Amino acid sequence: MRNWKLTVAYDGTDFSGWQIQPGQATIQGELQAALGRVTGERPLPQGSGRTDAGVHALGQVASFVLEAAIPAESLRRALNRTLPAAIRVLSAKEAAEGFHARHSAVAKTYEYRVFLEKTTGGETLCPPFLARYVYAYPWPLDVERLNAAAQHFVGTHDFLSFAASDPDAAAREDARPDGEAEGRATAIRTVFASAWEERGIEEGALAVYRVRGNGFLHHMVRNLVGTMLDVGRGYSEAGEIPGMLAARSRAAAGPTAPARGLFLHSVEYSS
Amino acid sequence: MRNWKLTVAYDGTDFSGWQIQPGQATIQGELQAALGRVTGERPLPQGSGRTDAGVHALGQVASFVLEAAIPAESLRRALNRTLPAAIRVLSAKEAAEGFHARHSAVAKTYEYRVFLEKTTGGETLCPPFLARYVYAYPWPLDVERLNAAAQHFVGTHDFLSFAASDPDAAAREDARPDGEAEGRATAIRTVFASAWEERGIEEGALAVYRVRGNGFLHHMVRNLVGTMLDVGRGYSEAGEIPGMLAARSRAAAGPTAPARGLFLHSVEYSS
Repeated sequence: MRNWKLTVAYDGTDFSGWQIQPGQATIQGELQAALGRVTGERPLPQGSGRTDAGVHALGQVASFVLEAAIPAESLRRALNRTLPAAIRVLSAKEAAEGFHARHSAVAKTYEYRVFLEKTTGGETLCPPFLARYVYAYPWPLDVERLNAAAQHFVGTHDFLSFAASDPDAAAREDARPDGEAEGRATAIRTVFASAWEERGIEEGALAVYRVRGNGFLHHMVRNLVGTMLDVGRGYSEAGEIPGMLAARSRAAAGPTAPARGLFLHSVEYSS
Repeated sequence: MRNWKLTVAYDGTDFSGWQIQPGQATIQGELQAALGRVTGERPLPQGSGRTDAGVHALGQVASFVLEAAIPAESLRRALNRTLPAAIRVLSAKEAAEGFHARHSAVAKTYEYRVFLEKTTGGETLCPPFLARYVYAYPWPLDVERLNAAAQHFVGTHDFLSFAASDPDAAAREDARPDGEAEGRATAIRTVFASAWEERGIEEGALAVYRVRGNGFLHHMVRNLVGTMLDVGRGYSEAGEIPGMLAARSRAAAGPTAPARGLFLHSVEYSS
């Protein structure tokens, strides 16, 4: 019995999210099937959190237990030979007993990428090769205004206004603070860092948001981004955000940004 | 009656190539349908050449005639509002009478992108976000050897050994030399430039091939690339290429590189 830790990147566009579902292509399902082909065992890999349909990962972490002893490099190579090109195992390592990709996580970082349009004609000129990986936002954005909004999220807050409005939104959080009981329905999370930067690329420029925290509610990053984009285009003001947090109501905050711009960047563990 | 010139970029992955075919998603078909929705007219846009299924374009050119008078910016914006995100109209311009995207072309440039693997374990570590747009070549490549091979293609040659082996390969060329009669079955083409360069990217490095010529046979660039990659990995020698050209036989040359790495970069016109 060995405990394993995989770091995985994926293009989520053509998958129905992380979580395994019958008859659907999912990241968890593809990994389980690949483990079955390579090892003959079919453990269900546990992710650091679920990602929704269309959400990508640069460094998702998954854990599982295998009976067989396999050299780590051999496992990674064999998995990459059999997985679809849209999923890559970046590293495979044996983990300490008791390591669990979700329960052991102490911080996660998400990235959201917005293509800064050069056109104002209601069209998007976003290059087709980027379209799956960015939000081609159809209005001009002021990155200073985005950052004025972003700073309001730093610290420990009740993020209920930014959680998906489904009844078990808090229970469906992506990662829970260390030591918190499973399924405890609180929307209080700590955001350690929250900032935008403009990133020049060959085809123009992106506005890239990075947020690092001890846990995120379902849809939380997309709701933070949708709200900040309203500020960035001048439709609302950064100063309204403390009131949105205080309202503890989804209706108080802005829209949900599309999945395609969102990347699970990395997951941190204490050891 | 106005003659139009569109410059178009597309991600060819999810299309059955440029040429319209019943019941299939094609670039030409999507453009015709978009023109129909925007103008009420349905001219069939003529491309500078066909691109195969999975081949991309950074600057394909298409021409067509419209009865209605429409400002060029309005046409471009309206087309981009209705086209799928995988197809973008980069520019729309009125063209001189008689301009034809294929017949008027004097030179075309293709680009082929290879991801340089850092692994030698038979797997590919190509990032999932690049996998649709590069050939993740599973062996180490020597870019100097690639360039030694590439220089043999510069000049006027009979490229029959590098044409698809279907009977009408020469007739199915992508662009014909200025003044050459339609459908004339010759495989003689002039390559003006042919070279590889290594291009650093965030996730590693690409080997990028650029070839500029007065016309290209069906599959010609992919066959040139497949042959050069054999040289780049040390499986054959650059010095064998003149003999391959002289053989005038598809069997004399190397394999066909996959469509996904190929981009129609640009098309040149005399005026």
